[in-house]
Amino acid sequence: MSTATLLDQLQEIVGDHGWTTDEADLEPHLTERRGMVRGKTLVMVSPSSTREVSAIVSACAAHNVAVVPQGGNTGLCGGAIPDASGEQVLLSLARMNSIRSIDASDNSMVVDAGCILADIQQAAHDAGRYFPLSLAAEGSCQIGGNLATNAGGLNVLRYGTARQQVLGLEVVLADGTVWDGLRTVCKDNAGYDIKQLFIGSEGTLGIITAAALRLWPQPGETTTILAAIEQPAQAIALLSCLREVVGDNVQAFELISDRCFRFVNRHLPDSRLPFEGEGELMRLIEDGVVADVVVAKSAHEAQVLWRMRHAIPDAQRSEGASLKHDISVPTSRIAEFVDQGARLVASLTPGGRLVAFGHVGDGNLHFNVSQPPGGDAEQFRQAGSALTRALYDLADSMGGSFSAEHGIGVTKRNWLEHYKGGAEIELMRTLKAALDPHNTLNPGKVI
Amino acid sequence: MSTATLLDQLQEIVGDHGWTTDEADLEPHLTERRGMVRGKTLVMVSPSSTREVSAIVSACAAHNVAVVPQGGNTGLCGGAIPDASGEQVLLSLARMNSIRSIDASDNSMVVDAGCILADIQQAAHDAGRYFPLSLAAEGSCQIGGNLATNAGGLNVLRYGTARQQVLGLEVVLADGTVWDGLRTVCKDNAGYDIKQLFIGSEGTLGIITAAALRLWPQPGETTTILAAIEQPAQAIALLSCLREVVGDNVQAFELISDRCFRFVNRHLPDSRLPFEGEGELMRLIEDGVVADVVVAKSAHEAQVLWRMRHAIPDAQRSEGASLKHDISVPTSRIAEFVDQGARLVASLTPGGRLVAFGHVGDGNLHFNVSQPPGGDAEQFRQAGSALTRALYDLADSMGGSFSAEHGIGVTKRNWLEHYKGGAEIELMRTLKAALDPHNTLNPGKVI
Repeated sequence: MSTATLLDQLQEIVGDHGWTTDEADLEPHLTERRGMVRGKTLVMVSPSSTREVSAIVSACAAHNVAVVPQGGNTGLCGGAIPDASGEQVLLSLARMNSIRSIDASDNSMVVDAGCILADIQQAAHDAGRYFPLSLAAEGSCQIGGNLATNAGGLNVLRYGTARQQVLGLEVVLADGTVWDGLRTVCKDNAGYDIKQLFIGSEGTLGIITAAALRLWPQPGETTTILAAIEQPAQAIALLSCLREVVGDNVQAFELISDRCFRFVNRHLPDSRLPFEGEGELMRLIEDGVVADVVVAKSAHEAQVLWRMRHAIPDAQRSEGASLKHDISVPTSRIAEFVDQGARLVASLTPGGRLVAFGHVGDGNLHFNVSQPPGGDAEQFRQAGSALTRALYDLADSMGGSFSAEHGIGVTKRNWLEHYKGGAEIELMRTLKAALDPHNTLNPGKVI
Repeated sequence: MSTATLLDQLQEIVGDHGWTTDEADLEPHLTERRGMVRGKTLVMVSPSSTREVSAIVSACAAHNVAVVPQGGNTGLCGGAIPDASGEQVLLSLARMNSIRSIDASDNSMVVDAGCILADIQQAAHDAGRYFPLSLAAEGSCQIGGNLATNAGGLNVLRYGTARQQVLGLEVVLADGTVWDGLRTVCKDNAGYDIKQLFIGSEGTLGIITAAALRLWPQPGETTTILAAIEQPAQAIALLSCLREVVGDNVQAFELISDRCFRFVNRHLPDSRLPFEGEGELMRLIEDGVVADVVVAKSAHEAQVLWRMRHAIPDAQRSEGASLKHDISVPTSRIAEFVDQGARLVASLTPGGRLVAFGHVGDGNLHFNVSQPPGGDAEQFRQAGSALTRALYDLADSMGGSFSAEHGIGVTKRNWLEHYKGGAEIELMRTLKAALDPHNTLNPGKVI
């Protein structure tokens, strides 16, 4: 069967609205935001239903053609980008963006994979409930991608990652079979928990088409504070202090290095450095744990603080090429990692500007480095590979991970093989071979 | 290779202390507590290390002999009992009962699979932390079994099931390979989350030998109340009221039918009915949602209330044969289930005494029925199969599960096939075949 036959079949399945080979249309879908991974595609299909996804996957399987699922394309590891062959079919979930149902009394909602995360948050809010998954890309990322990558973000400390928000899934398997696991009950120990397989597997074991999500009571009174510290160790001490008082009700706890604020200040309109020595600053803790504290006095002020946090990735992109390291270590070793990591940055990428921020309550840091101002981007990136290796080794030596929440995609495959060798990578290969025996689901990603 | 050769090899691996074929020694390990499942075994081996477990599994694999792992043998579905052939090797994890490490600053601990759940709770408490998994059998069940069955229990509402308490696992695979996944970091998206496979798979995909567990801050001020209601719907209304006030800080929310208290009162020494009209009773809510409320005025009083809750299964056993149904439905439909379910009990098992209790905050009820006093146990059990089918159909029709937290074991295999047919059971079979190709890990359980 020829490629032309497949294209005809695909066009018949999705119709004219769900189909493009136009270069300009395709362009934003063929690279991730930093331009580090670039691919080609035979065609981009945008099905409008699970039935269409199933038919597309069946047709591709019959032609032994690979399918690459893509959500909001906000991933950082190239997991949603087709390879350079131009022979893979790109499957966008964007048109499947309905909230199928929402049930406040059962604390559940069922959504299409292409729903934008922020829309889901809003729908939960409108129903008097709370959907806690929150991350910088929430205005454009899609829930299918969030689940396929087990996204983390701000509220993991209190609510867990994307995985913990899932009650059920609907998944199209490698041969086109639809598995309808859209249950909304909280507890179901009837056999293996199949949905766990697909969460975090980046579309390599099946394509998530819909999800039943868990909703939470809206948080009651919340307080947002921005505290100035001089050493990372003080962050961990502060977290311990807070937990003594409010137990596990600390919802999010982020560490943000001062350069992050300078970048945001430079690139985000209407932003300003929060620590300008005004009378607003309250000296809450004078024993040296914390130097200064800003307490948001309204929901609006809290939003302003979080907006600055969310703006960091965009601001960093405006500063040129960057090296990104999404590491985790046991929380108690965060300060040690920052200290040793900063020395590695100084020695291995001279002039490189450390931009460290992230979810230290979870032991997860985005230990990024921006190129020296005005320097050569490509040269910086090449010099960066030694730094990346050194930082990953450091995290690994502390019992940590080189990919805490961003996944593997295509850019970290070699690292996966390096750090998770032996029995674990063999188990992963066994799973891949069992669920996708012809290797047509997002091949070349993860493993 | 003969059976005698295998026995010699096993004895060499575990030594005299870890080995028995003595009938009296074996007796408590060859049946579950209600005596519904009874098996035989070639030998019971009790390894003292992961290395020994690995060697046992390797030796058995070489002889194509099945291995049945067993923890505290408190399961209700026969998942830890060898079959009747007498040809399977029973592997007890009981001697592997060390707490390997505990780290309060990282909120983690690493434990052997054979650790008693209550000992883990205590160790966490001694370190100033909290391990929330709690269930009636906690004084004798082992963490390996808790994880292999994804145990639920009292605190799921606030903290999740056993699955949510796991940071990492150590597992012996079907060929004896040891997978060391004992990481203690909170976040790790480096490849497929392999540990999820083994949690809840009842020893059919691998044998859990150790676990890295997540610890929580100790709950701050807690209040334990016992409220009297007249209709199950009032329970759900009460839960909503509580959540309006304290959000998701409701830690546990149990529904207990009055017959449960009468049974406990009859069989638990020093227990008394809590509602005896004393002045202690506080009329908290007079609008009809709740009739009466006991508020525990001390930690001791709270313990007394929970002790009564924990005593229900033992008390029910003292009342003769029982039918157990561990169902879940969306929370909003609990009252409807109780109402319709009670009518099924009355019509299908006349004289049968409904003993309903459980975790209604999770939509999970133990909808049990005790035989009529003085009636014939076997006759009651046989009549019960039609009731069981009707109750499972009822849960299924509400989008619920016939096995919310107890798993499948051997007694619910047929139901699994019946209710999870099609793509889901095929996926389970694919996983079993991929991870245990010679079907020597707890064969005949789950699928």
